[in-house]
Amino acid sequence: MSGNTFGKLFSVTTFGESHGVALGCTIDGCPPGLAIDEEYIQAQLDRRKPGQSRFTTQRREPDQVKILSGVFDGVTTGTPVSLMIENVDQRSKDYGDIAAKFRPGHADYTYWQKYGIRDYRGGGRSSARETASRVAAGAVARKVLGDDVRIRGALVQVGPHRINRDNWDWDQVNQNPFWCPDAEAAELWTGYLDEIRKAGSSTGAVIEVVADGVPAGWGAPIYGKLDSDMAAAMMTINAVKGVEIGEGFDAAALTGEENADQMRTGDNQGGPVFQSNHAGGILGGISTGQQVVVRFAVKPTSSILTSRQTIDISGNNTEILTKGRHDPCVGIRTVPVGEAMMALVLADHMLRHRGQQVDR
Amino acid sequence: MSGNTFGKLFSVTTFGESHGVALGCTIDGCPPGLAIDEEYIQAQLDRRKPGQSRFTTQRREPDQVKILSGVFDGVTTGTPVSLMIENVDQRSKDYGDIAAKFRPGHADYTYWQKYGIRDYRGGGRSSARETASRVAAGAVARKVLGDDVRIRGALVQVGPHRINRDNWDWDQVNQNPFWCPDAEAAELWTGYLDEIRKAGSSTGAVIEVVADGVPAGWGAPIYGKLDSDMAAAMMTINAVKGVEIGEGFDAAALTGEENADQMRTGDNQGGPVFQSNHAGGILGGISTGQQVVVRFAVKPTSSILTSRQTIDISGNNTEILTKGRHDPCVGIRTVPVGEAMMALVLADHMLRHRGQQVDR
Amino acid sequence: MSGNTFGKLFSVTTFGESHGVALGCTIDGCPPGLAIDEEYIQAQLDRRKPGQSRFTTQRREPDQVKILSGVFDGVTTGTPVSLMIENVDQRSKDYGDIAAKFRPGHADYTYWQKYGIRDYRGGGRSSARETASRVAAGAVARKVLGDDVRIRGALVQVGPHRINRDNWDWDQVNQNPFWCPDAEAAELWTGYLDEIRKAGSSTGAVIEVVADGVPAGWGAPIYGKLDSDMAAAMMTINAVKGVEIGEGFDAAALTGEENADQMRTGDNQGGPVFQSNHAGGILGGISTGQQVVVRFAVKPTSSILTSRQTIDISGNNTEILTKGRHDPCVGIRTVPVGEAMMALVLADHMLRHRGQQVDR
Amino acid sequence: MSGNTFGKLFSVTTFGESHGVALGCTIDGCPPGLAIDEEYIQAQLDRRKPGQSRFTTQRREPDQVKILSGVFDGVTTGTPVSLMIENVDQRSKDYGDIAAKFRPGHADYTYWQKYGIRDYRGGGRSSARETASRVAAGAVARKVLGDDVRIRGALVQVGPHRINRDNWDWDQVNQNPFWCPDAEAAELWTGYLDEIRKAGSSTGAVIEVVADGVPAGWGAPIYGKLDSDMAAAMMTINAVKGVEIGEGFDAAALTGEENADQMRTGDNQGGPVFQSNHAGGILGGISTGQQVVVRFAVKPTSSILTSRQTIDISGNNTEILTKGRHDPCVGIRTVPVGEAMMALVLADHMLRHRGQQVDR
Repeated sequence: MSGNTFGKLFSVTTFGESHGVALGCTIDGCPPGLAIDEEYIQAQLDRRKPGQSRFTTQRREPDQVKILSGVFDGVTTGTPVSLMIENVDQRSKDYGDIAAKFRPGHADYTYWQKYGIRDYRGGGRSSARETASRVAAGAVARKVLGDDVRIRGALVQVGPHRINRDNWDWDQVNQNPFWCPDAEAAELWTGYLDEIRKAGSSTGAVIEVVADGVPAGWGAPIYGKLDSDMAAAMMTINAVKGVEIGEGFDAAALTGEENADQMRTGDNQGGPVFQSNHAGGILGGISTGQQVVVRFAVKPTSSILTSRQTIDISGNNTEILTKGRHDPCVGIRTVPVGEAMMALVLADHMLRHRGQQVDR
Repeated sequence: MSGNTFGKLFSVTTFGESHGVALGCTIDGCPPGLAIDEEYIQAQLDRRKPGQSRFTTQRREPDQVKILSGVFDGVTTGTPVSLMIENVDQRSKDYGDIAAKFRPGHADYTYWQKYGIRDYRGGGRSSARETASRVAAGAVARKVLGDDVRIRGALVQVGPHRINRDNWDWDQVNQNPFWCPDAEAAELWTGYLDEIRKAGSSTGAVIEVVADGVPAGWGAPIYGKLDSDMAAAMMTINAVKGVEIGEGFDAAALTGEENADQMRTGDNQGGPVFQSNHAGGILGGISTGQQVVVRFAVKPTSSILTSRQTIDISGNNTEILTKGRHDPCVGIRTVPVGEAMMALVLADHMLRHRGQQVDR
Repeated sequence: MSGNTFGKLFSVTTFGESHGVALGCTIDGCPPGLAIDEEYIQAQLDRRKPGQSRFTTQRREPDQVKILSGVFDGVTTGTPVSLMIENVDQRSKDYGDIAAKFRPGHADYTYWQKYGIRDYRGGGRSSARETASRVAAGAVARKVLGDDVRIRGALVQVGPHRINRDNWDWDQVNQNPFWCPDAEAAELWTGYLDEIRKAGSSTGAVIEVVADGVPAGWGAPIYGKLDSDMAAAMMTINAVKGVEIGEGFDAAALTGEENADQMRTGDNQGGPVFQSNHAGGILGGISTGQQVVVRFAVKPTSSILTSRQTIDISGNNTEILTKGRHDPCVGIRTVPVGEAMMALVLADHMLRHRGQQVDR
Repeated sequence: MSGNTFGKLFSVTTFGESHGVALGCTIDGCPPGLAIDEEYIQAQLDRRKPGQSRFTTQRREPDQVKILSGVFDGVTTGTPVSLMIENVDQRSKDYGDIAAKFRPGHADYTYWQKYGIRDYRGGGRSSARETASRVAAGAVARKVLGDDVRIRGALVQVGPHRINRDNWDWDQVNQNPFWCPDAEAAELWTGYLDEIRKAGSSTGAVIEVVADGVPAGWGAPIYGKLDSDMAAAMMTINAVKGVEIGEGFDAAALTGEENADQMRTGDNQGGPVFQSNHAGGILGGISTGQQVVVRFAVKPTSSILTSRQTIDISGNNTEILTKGRHDPCVGIRTVPVGEAMMALVLADHMLRHRGQQVDR
């Protein structure tokens, strides 16, 4: 029931602080025989690396992943796969204000209240650096899922600006610094984010992650629902404040006639052809065989260049201003993290589904 | 890792189908010494009972809860509290079309794909009747939390019609059949839902659940975050398609200046006075001491009086029309369920928080 | 992490006190499509029923099992299977001394210390009546395992008297009231237990449970070892004080030459022919394909007709004498319980093994 | 439900192979504020280090533990404590026979059957080197327990030679290379083990671990029993084949009069004075406040200098002889491991007990 473990059969335990010795994860329950090496995982990790455009933090995080166990002769052995990323640049610094003051919107105050102590360096355990471990684990999860399941993420809203879904083109996603599937929106965002960045401000975003190739039948009633695990997974990502499946919150405004996805016989590998996908590929907590569609909202990062009212650890009123490099829209780098979390949930449910089936 | 168990230390395992012999739950990890009796639990159960107005199904469900174990001399003993609700009206019926056809928007098709068999009577395990067990368990969870923690739910949107939050009055909630905190909205909804009901249609809704009195420090990094468990909890409720905390999806459109809640010293039992609550009472997965605010969207029930296209279990095209009494807005009866799920999450985290603390 | 749940994928949550309303269990993760009915489970339950000879308690426990959920059209549906046994004879009685005094060797004192309250009627939750739930669940587990796996238990020691293993004959097990595989020992035990019984005394025993047909490969490193789960399972049974696998404690006195089981190619369905089975069918926590052999020791029941020194709930010195019908050797009725626990462990590991395998 | 995780609230996930890059563990749920540093953990680790006498393997394992996370300013922060031990000497070697042949009594064959692949270098994951992680984690667990709880282990049998319990003297334990509390037995074992060693043979052993200072009330019914978790814990240790609590298997030969521990009022911090401790400090799965006494049997290591019959990975008959340094009695080095496992179980139950209590 470890709070730092995610998943039941394919389970990932992460550790590490932003400015500690190292961070990483141990993957337990990984099926044997999967071809994994450091280059493969590194390639996934590099997708969330900061500093790849002017729209993400210019902080240097040369994260190099190291496989500590569970892989032999190039394939997984079925025993725990432990992955480590050393924090190369942990020289003593002046942490200035953040040691003694609680940054508004950050977890500084709540960690302090919970534990009576906190590793304030770079946010400690609450830093988004932890998500590197998830992306590394997600890379292994993708191997479990195999080539039939394809997971892709996209940024669909930045600040108040949503994409035009009619323009959706997956090929665009790698052609702009935003993982944006709408070329027009990407251009608009460029201007918008330049403003935000220059103002030392920040903005929120919405990410959509889609899985193709998930067969019908994954997931389980009642508290093991695929959508429940998706919601939990996404809500564990730093700064996420909302999650929705398929139609999501918009479903509240629909009628039953509009919302329920009708079925027709068709040429779909034995399964029905659904005439719409308001459900986002999940009914009763179990996959329908359609695309699994999950969306989540990321709040604006609370590290901004404007002075903010807060209290210090002695309870006195004070102000704080977070200097240094920061992400104008932390949602951008969250796209690969959302993909990784979906991969973890699906791999876990794939194994759980297998586990309950008996041929008799 | 049971799919039908919810919670880690205060854990609830539910069982039962809509038209089976009985349904209920076993609560494990309940602290000893709490005063519980059947009348107390029944009062909570009755809040979600159908047929209390013309806006909920007219189906008769005279659910009587029975305590099977774990209570002695009127108080909990620390051993499992098992609660049972017998299905009194399980006479053999003509289940007509639903045995052979998959109802669009329901879990019929996915259960069939997963298990190769399904109890089609009234939806079997996927029926919202299962939520009675949650409300019963939630009543026990409220006893764990004690009087200092107060959990209240309200309906804040029906179909496309949202409440005016300026009108919010908790006293209104028990004065209309919708748990609506806005008297004006309640009136508008009356007309809207009468239309929906007469048309044999249905509509979605949004529910907000708020907890007062949660101390700072509950919740845990990283996958044991309070908001992650809240999201998982709400997403397990039938028909829920989205969950958000505090500002939720609207946070995407805000800037860091607007979103991060500033703190000031004040008269707040030692804690700071937050100047806003965009966070919904949770930062870094841990409670801040403010109100915990969770919102979730419920889709329109898929049981409507309009004929819908589907396939049968042999894979042939067909149509289905769900006759009989149904909920025009299933979201109404979901309000007490949302409260119960929040109570379960908070009680569990209260115990988990206690568990990790050592006086030394 | 519920203390009243056993198993990971095939998981059983039990509830109920000796003299409460009912006791039973909810089985989660049960594969769909298994033929189960009340008669089948009842037949297993009847094997542990008291009063079948003068060597078990003459208490009347007409336990009738009722299936509350999870079975439809005669087969499991994949949803929770809930089983209930009502306590038919729970009329108010004079519980006399046991309400106010702690019986030596029983859990009275420890429950009191832990919870500050205890259901003293018949031992409450700590009564061996709880094992009825296990036997019922074990019956379902046997269906999961199928006919290829055969689980049989036997009593191999009563008081100081061990069987002669050269006389082992499984057919004898059902021909004496002791589940004894050695006809000569059974005769000796008859006399010995008559003495114990007439003296109002009690004695301990050792039970051996053996599974045939377990394929190589079930179990998992390191804390999910098959033998670790067997040890945990048996140690949860009331009055058990020791568990061993294969050679067990005798292995301490052996040399490596004597103990390690050599292998030869042979006619064994592709597997090797082991030349001995000191390992008890488990190496490195994983099954070898040989017989799985588990043995456990049961202490003498502490309910005897001799007055014993103890304290009362106010902390005063006093004496207690447990009147009424009791088991001279509670180990006898534990044989079907040991079989059930082995079935639960094996069914769980069968599903867990399936879960981690991926065909790629 | 990870197979490589131990514990519920204080939970330890281990990783690593004998000859891989590194091994270690992540401790989750550790209370904040405990003073921990590498020196402290190292001192515990050094107790199980090989090569400290001629009676343990002469293999050089200069295990240096490194704290990767969870400790800040010298104390635990409440976040995961990750510990790593690098395998300094992992140069490519000739693994000779063990790559292609299954060593009798080792896990070679079962890993092969389970996973279809195995890291044969030094036994891979099934090597007793994994227990270094446990000892490191156990050192942290001792800090959770504090000074009031004292855990000590001793070797009480080597081969067929048991200690004389009348000679028991804890001070002797550190004055011989066997952790033997009986000076006479230690002398006898010296001769016996020299013979075993010179013959290239091996022998089994029995270890006893005792905890003083455990308060009454730790543990939980029914499947969360303290003794059940102790049994599981010890049975996960390499080569362990049997576990017993208190009187253990000898309880089978006792009568109820002999076995049940009587109680008297006395000067015992409010608790009763037990007149004996056949129960080993646990009744009904819950601690009594007496010494907790656990004993376990270790089989002789299967690595011996005598040629043994086996098969190779192609299924052909062959022979194998395990050259190189080995432990004549692996039980000796298991003493600190048994202590560590007891510390893990107790720390976990301490937190679990706290978690279920509510002051109301």
